[in-house]
Amino acid sequence: MDVRELAVQKKRELKGFLTVGTKYELKDAHDLSVAYTPGVAEPCLRIKDNEAESFELTCRSNMVAVVSDGTRVLGLGDIGAAAALPVMEGKSLLFKKFGDVDCIPLVVDTKDADTLINTVKLLQKNFAGINLEDISSPKCYEVENRLKEELEIPVFHDDQHGTAIACLAGVKGALRLVKKDLATAKIVVNGAGAAGANIARLLYLAGARDITLLVSSGVLHKDYKRLDSLQAELIDLLKLEEKHGNLAENAKGADILLGVSAAGAFTKEILENLADDAIVFAMANPNPEATYADMKAAGIRVAGTGRSDAPNQINNVAVFPGVFRGAIDVRASQITDEMKLAAADALAHLIPDSELNEENVMPSVFDPRVAPAVAKAVAEVAVKQGIAKNPQVVEDGSYEG
Amino acid sequence: MDVRELAVQKKRELKGFLTVGTKYELKDAHDLSVAYTPGVAEPCLRIKDNEAESFELTCRSNMVAVVSDGTRVLGLGDIGAAAALPVMEGKSLLFKKFGDVDCIPLVVDTKDADTLINTVKLLQKNFAGINLEDISSPKCYEVENRLKEELEIPVFHDDQHGTAIACLAGVKGALRLVKKDLATAKIVVNGAGAAGANIARLLYLAGARDITLLVSSGVLHKDYKRLDSLQAELIDLLKLEEKHGNLAENAKGADILLGVSAAGAFTKEILENLADDAIVFAMANPNPEATYADMKAAGIRVAGTGRSDAPNQINNVAVFPGVFRGAIDVRASQITDEMKLAAADALAHLIPDSELNEENVMPSVFDPRVAPAVAKAVAEVAVKQGIAKNPQVVEDGSYEG
Repeated sequence: MDVRELAVQKKRELKGFLTVGTKYELKDAHDLSVAYTPGVAEPCLRIKDNEAESFELTCRSNMVAVVSDGTRVLGLGDIGAAAALPVMEGKSLLFKKFGDVDCIPLVVDTKDADTLINTVKLLQKNFAGINLEDISSPKCYEVENRLKEELEIPVFHDDQHGTAIACLAGVKGALRLVKKDLATAKIVVNGAGAAGANIARLLYLAGARDITLLVSSGVLHKDYKRLDSLQAELIDLLKLEEKHGNLAENAKGADILLGVSAAGAFTKEILENLADDAIVFAMANPNPEATYADMKAAGIRVAGTGRSDAPNQINNVAVFPGVFRGAIDVRASQITDEMKLAAADALAHLIPDSELNEENVMPSVFDPRVAPAVAKAVAEVAVKQGIAKNPQVVEDGSYEG
Repeated sequence: MDVRELAVQKKRELKGFLTVGTKYELKDAHDLSVAYTPGVAEPCLRIKDNEAESFELTCRSNMVAVVSDGTRVLGLGDIGAAAALPVMEGKSLLFKKFGDVDCIPLVVDTKDADTLINTVKLLQKNFAGINLEDISSPKCYEVENRLKEELEIPVFHDDQHGTAIACLAGVKGALRLVKKDLATAKIVVNGAGAAGANIARLLYLAGARDITLLVSSGVLHKDYKRLDSLQAELIDLLKLEEKHGNLAENAKGADILLGVSAAGAFTKEILENLADDAIVFAMANPNPEATYADMKAAGIRVAGTGRSDAPNQINNVAVFPGVFRGAIDVRASQITDEMKLAAADALAHLIPDSELNEENVMPSVFDPRVAPAVAKAVAEVAVKQGIAKNPQVVEDGSYEG
């Protein structure tokens, strides 16, 4: 059966995939008096005196909301809050499975950025972190930036940063294999939406300098009619006004070609005109810019896609569970660029040189070392940056055990 | 160890009592493609075409939010959103244990009724029902009434209706034992807050006609300085302007005395001057208007309290899990007065005449028949009233199996 039909069938059979579990058993009246009145009054008073206790005495300790307004769900567009629920539920499942983070879907029935921001602010006391999901661009930038400023808990828009971190990790692994240097590699990023723009930005922060960012009409310039704030920033940062031409022209001789654009965008001609030992990640989902087989047939040395049925899956599932695990463990107030870079490094370093090869530059999402390694890296940087309210977790060596 | 200290210790040890569970195991890439992309796209589209599918294909099917603004938490007053979390978490635990309802705490960081109402409206697509909790009076009336009007899912303010339903059930059981009739019984209700006012109202709806409702200054009259909308309605309904005097004067010769007021309010003199075969429920929590022992010493035939350490516990824990179970099962759009009356009847009838005695007029919250009996009654009435979007559950006899 097709996975889409199977998803409907399984979800109908189970009435959704998430449930609420309890860690304290209610066997008798005494248990009731501990979990509810009169015992519960004391934890309430402790938190009233010191709000930090809410992270120690309640499920807030490990609870993240997967927040969406349903305005840009997968490739389906603006399908609304209720219809976005299955994605948020699926994401919550992944958080639990890979990061042991307790997550609940929280769709907000609005299209308005201010309303979405205010709603999340009103609800922040329930959560240890906020994962933003499937919010249309450029609204997603305003929503994430304002929530990062206004909330005391970490906020992370996975569509922006999850793929960017995974992509940087894969690029780092591949560069080690082909013995090229990020600082001098000629890089082309095709697609300047939330994912593409953040891939370019994170590559720059990691030290890359020759990055060309393209939209369907060619190199991203200031006359692009839907130019958003992040794109404008990147035009200056990457000096894109000095560059010209379409994808085929810019990809000629490139060391790294990254796609977050559309199925089929990487033609045989484009692939064959890249530099020797080229690295190509075709991350359009579910149908990539070129299939893994086509990339290999065109002589690409390291190829990857977003799909699980080919080698080198570049997928945010390797990223967000560990990022939140680490950020929550140390109670980081934010998820900073430095934490994102550390997450990518940790992922890239999970593969030792002896295991690095053309089909293995990126660890599998099912590798059990992935989330702990990312969590440790993220937590350590948060502590170093002085934004961790609970640095003991790192200091006492919990991540080593 | 004192239960309050034990509550802190256990909650600290477990970092809260709630967790998120999964019903679908992610073993491999295929499972991922069913739970997340690309499979998840199909459930999204089904819901986009028909929103009712969100109740069949996602965890919304069984998910209730325990919503509070933290403005009237237990007897602790306005302690704020974060400090209210332990109560909402405890309540969620009880929902799961007794009604198999998946519940999450949702505190909203506002004191403003409009903001609270709007926030719940924006979030309703996540939930099958809303349980309001620990919201100060009279704000709680406006919040519940407007949400009942404006939401498509059931809304229930447990502090108002849970205790009222439990109390009516206990009264019905006790009246059967002492062979008196609700329609002619002389009833005194001491305390006209959210619980007391709703006890008086539900007794009236159940057929009682001689009900005197008192505040600390005496019979509730229109000159009461903090008079709220429900109290004003009850003054007319119960013809309270015709009644005068304090508690002791009104309790003289009463068949039923109900307290939701303050510890110690029922003195020996008051208790000894009630009618023969009197019924007294002293429901102030955790310290009742009179202890069970004092009531028995004063010759009260049927005594009850809100406590679990004495017979005849009048506790909303016997009510809300079954009420929501039934309302959700049939997808009732509301929880009507008729459903509340049916819930009380179902509880009262769980004790057959042969088992009815002075120490057993109200089923134990740990009696496994309680929630299913309440659920069945609530669901059947919803179907009869034509407000059930999923009447099949009743029609196909699921509750009999």
